[in-house]
Amino acid sequence: MGDVTARIAEIVGERNLLTGDAVPEDYAHDESLTVGAAKPAYVAKPSTADEVSALLALAAEHEIPVTARGSGSGLSGAARPREDGLVVSFERMNAVLAIDTANQVAVVQPGVTLSELDEATREAGLAYTVYPGELSASVGGNVGTNAGGMRAVKYGVARHNIVGLQAVLPGGEVITTGGKTSKISSGYDLTQLIIGSEGTLALVTEVTVKLYPRLPHAATLLAPFGDLDQVMRAVPEIIASGLTPSILEYIDNLTMAAISYNEKLELGVPEEVRNATQAYLVVGLENRDGDRLDGDVQRAGELLGDLGASDVYVLDGGSARKLIEAREKAFWTAKAAGADDVIDVVVPRSEMPGFLAKARELAAAAEAGAIGCGHAGDGNVHLAIFCKDTEKRHKLLHGIFAVAVAVGGAISGEHGIGQAKKDHFLALEDPAKVALLRRIKQAFDPKGILNPDVLFD
Amino acid sequence: MGDVTARIAEIVGERNLLTGDAVPEDYAHDESLTVGAAKPAYVAKPSTADEVSALLALAAEHEIPVTARGSGSGLSGAARPREDGLVVSFERMNAVLAIDTANQVAVVQPGVTLSELDEATREAGLAYTVYPGELSASVGGNVGTNAGGMRAVKYGVARHNIVGLQAVLPGGEVITTGGKTSKISSGYDLTQLIIGSEGTLALVTEVTVKLYPRLPHAATLLAPFGDLDQVMRAVPEIIASGLTPSILEYIDNLTMAAISYNEKLELGVPEEVRNATQAYLVVGLENRDGDRLDGDVQRAGELLGDLGASDVYVLDGGSARKLIEAREKAFWTAKAAGADDVIDVVVPRSEMPGFLAKARELAAAAEAGAIGCGHAGDGNVHLAIFCKDTEKRHKLLHGIFAVAVAVGGAISGEHGIGQAKKDHFLALEDPAKVALLRRIKQAFDPKGILNPDVLFD
Ligand SMILES: Cc1cc2nc3c(=O)[nH]c(=O)nc-3n(C[C@H](O)[C@H](O)[C@H](O)COP(=O)(O)OP(=O)(O)OC[C@H]3O[C@@H](n4cnc5c(N)ncnc54)[C@H](O)[C@@H]3O)c2cc1C
Ligand SMILES: Cc1cc2nc3c(=O)[nH]c(=O)nc-3n(C[C@H](O)[C@H](O)[C@H](O)COP(=O)(O)OP(=O)(O)OC[C@H]3O[C@@H](n4cnc5c(N)ncnc54)[C@H](O)[C@@H]3O)c2cc1C
Repeated sequence: MGDVTARIAEIVGERNLLTGDAVPEDYAHDESLTVGAAKPAYVAKPSTADEVSALLALAAEHEIPVTARGSGSGLSGAARPREDGLVVSFERMNAVLAIDTANQVAVVQPGVTLSELDEATREAGLAYTVYPGELSASVGGNVGTNAGGMRAVKYGVARHNIVGLQAVLPGGEVITTGGKTSKISSGYDLTQLIIGSEGTLALVTEVTVKLYPRLPHAATLLAPFGDLDQVMRAVPEIIASGLTPSILEYIDNLTMAAISYNEKLELGVPEEVRNATQAYLVVGLENRDGDRLDGDVQRAGELLGDLGASDVYVLDGGSARKLIEAREKAFWTAKAAGADDVIDVVVPRSEMPGFLAKARELAAAAEAGAIGCGHAGDGNVHLAIFCKDTEKRHKLLHGIFAVAVAVGGAISGEHGIGQAKKDHFLALEDPAKVALLRRIKQAFDPKGILNPDVLFD
Repeated sequence: MGDVTARIAEIVGERNLLTGDAVPEDYAHDESLTVGAAKPAYVAKPSTADEVSALLALAAEHEIPVTARGSGSGLSGAARPREDGLVVSFERMNAVLAIDTANQVAVVQPGVTLSELDEATREAGLAYTVYPGELSASVGGNVGTNAGGMRAVKYGVARHNIVGLQAVLPGGEVITTGGKTSKISSGYDLTQLIIGSEGTLALVTEVTVKLYPRLPHAATLLAPFGDLDQVMRAVPEIIASGLTPSILEYIDNLTMAAISYNEKLELGVPEEVRNATQAYLVVGLENRDGDRLDGDVQRAGELLGDLGASDVYVLDGGSARKLIEAREKAFWTAKAAGADDVIDVVVPRSEMPGFLAKARELAAAAEAGAIGCGHAGDGNVHLAIFCKDTEKRHKLLHGIFAVAVAVGGAISGEHGIGQAKKDHFLALEDPAKVALLRRIKQAFDPKGILNPDVLFD
């Protein structure tokens, strides 16, 4: 152990290694509500791919469990290390290496945060359009979890926005995958395989992301509905309309009340409308042309009315921004309200009404609460679960996940399985498929040093 | 062998098995210009995933090489079987199982052709937007090659349009991956791993594809340029303009002359303009709104002028359709003209001018011809190579591919590596990466029965 410490210090420099009591609590967990903390034996902060390579070679030699860490904002416990393990923290590898306007891509180090990248791309009038609720998240973390967020309904999730990687394999080899082109058909797509692998296959040391033009004109519509079911049935219609909303969120009345109260939202919805509302749809529209946007807002308003909205409010810029920010903080609101878990089931859009009805039934039967909001356009339902009893909650979650899987959905749309949901994943997933995933894991990581507690047992 | 024949006949029914002399020549090759034919020992035409599973279990037991075949229109020799092998032809598994308008997906069997699917989706006003030049191609083949085509510049390639699969592993296990949702973060993305794997990892028995609304208004602009370099430099500007063209092709003057002659095109470009033209850009625009389309056509015309087009022709519907069809037949035109190979290198858009200049230099030095067209918006350059001498041609291709790889591109953008380009692939690709690809292959196919001559040696 003394020897390992010395060798890590040699690789990253003494000041970039933390061990024992010097390891801050923060490295012991991510933001999952259910996966407990575990202080790692070592935290190393490399500054180059070569250092990462040397760290992995060392870890492989000594079979030390390794957990990659971006900003630790994940919600699945996938950045929770082993106590005898090494955290490779990418916080120092946070440079934006290139903003390439001709190819509309940026090349960045994995530790760059989403707000840093947003800032860096602004001048060029471009943006990396993956906006999970937490902009302190890192791009490397986005790769790890296949992050989504509100704009995914238009721009897709991390998977659709990451075109190339440099990655270090557990044996220490540095490889590059993909590149600045949006299509390649030359061997298996390792970029896509590593995206969403939650730090179990390789450590990512460089990321090439797509950039899209920032559109100058935007509007946000808020539509209260008397009936949650109606909201869910409206979603496919809005998608089919060709309006290509950049945001299509639902927020149930309890969640709206909570985030409005917490964030002091004033949206101009009269009390009698609020009282008669079961859920809201938030529709974001954007355009490079102001007149076209106005036309779309008009059309969207009419469509929402036809679909049963009791009213439609076109929010002014300030209110719209506040509402979106409040929605992004829904996780903190739920946590503060005592939620025991937050899940992000995904189902086919058409299955949302049925899924939500069953999830609520199951929650009621368990005398638990299940309220939420979500990326409705993607069929991605975020539910805050209130149920103190661990065993009861586990059973409830199993029931909810089973319903989702039965209708062709999955346990997680964007947060990942991590350590938090792997019991459910392994119980509900086809064993032949799990066996194949394990063999793939083995192909990358024969010694099983990368995040050994994530996804698998 | 007699035993194997009997068992295959039991699985698929006697009439759906061909052996020996009864195997038509067609099953011995795809459309690659360089990979010779090889008649397989057996051609089986299963009708269900269970039959495919039984075939693979049998093949694994006897270590019989298996080649999946869609329509055999591939250009990389990836559907060329082994002489002692079994071709699993998906021609009978060609049902459209569901057109799901609420989720905007179709669920199809792999043998359905692109024209059949186009027909089946028309009534719902939707389309599977992967249009490689050959509409007799099958959806299963699209999965195999990660097919692209002219619309990829707007809608992406097969990878971006296929959201779920049912697939049979070489051991016979039937698994499902993905689903009707556009995002999932629950384990490694097997859908993406199988897409582009050219029949080497699993046999696909069902495909869920995204559908997009068919936009009612479309226009096609043709812009001649005096200089090929200028065309290439115009491409990133058009992409950056936010006009989101649905087609952005370049056609060099020789190719334009050849396809115009062959297809009797009358595009209204006067002779003096034609004579002063090195290459053309074809820009397709579409919109759900006629006025918006008109505005975009106006803007695109001005932009093309600013970028150096010597003129801009807005083609009428009939001419536009004919031009697109002729462009799609460019492969046949090149073949008829005696081309010895057709390649489809991809490079970052910004690298196209430099890449094309070097490729032409290399061709000139080898006293070979290299003319072409391509999906310029994707950086995907299709070159017809005229060079009879096999060794010289191999060297020339190696040189061209090396230039592409050196500027961050790849050997193939959409046709695949197959058997045709694997020498080059294995010579130019990082050995650590090839070793990893082989381990992944091993994780799926430990006995190496699936397409053993494709991608690897
Ligand atoms: C308030 C709040 C709102 C959120 N909203 C959303 C949302 O809308 N959508 C959404 O998708 N997520 C959301 N999240 C979750 C989180 O922000 C995302 O999962 C994000 O991608 C995590 O990034 P990170 O840098 O914090 O990753 P971490 O938590 O540090 O790590 C996440 C995973 O990635 C791996 N990893 C990190 N860096 C690397 C690397 N360089 N190489 C290999 N693996 C690596 C880790 O090992 C771990 O498995 C939210 C979180 C919070 C707290
Ligand atoms: C004139 C012409 C123009 C073309 N233009 C384009 C173009 O613009 N863009 C483009 O991308 N391609 C183009 N192509 C190539 C070709 O059409 C595509 O590669 C297409 O995807 C092949 O489909 P297929 O059904 O013919 O596949 P096949 O040739 O039968 O097979 C292709 C690969 O897929 C595998 N495969 C087939 N079915 C399955 C299955 N069910 N499960 C697993 N593996 C399977 C095969 O083993 C093989 O590896 C063109 C071809 C021609 C002849």
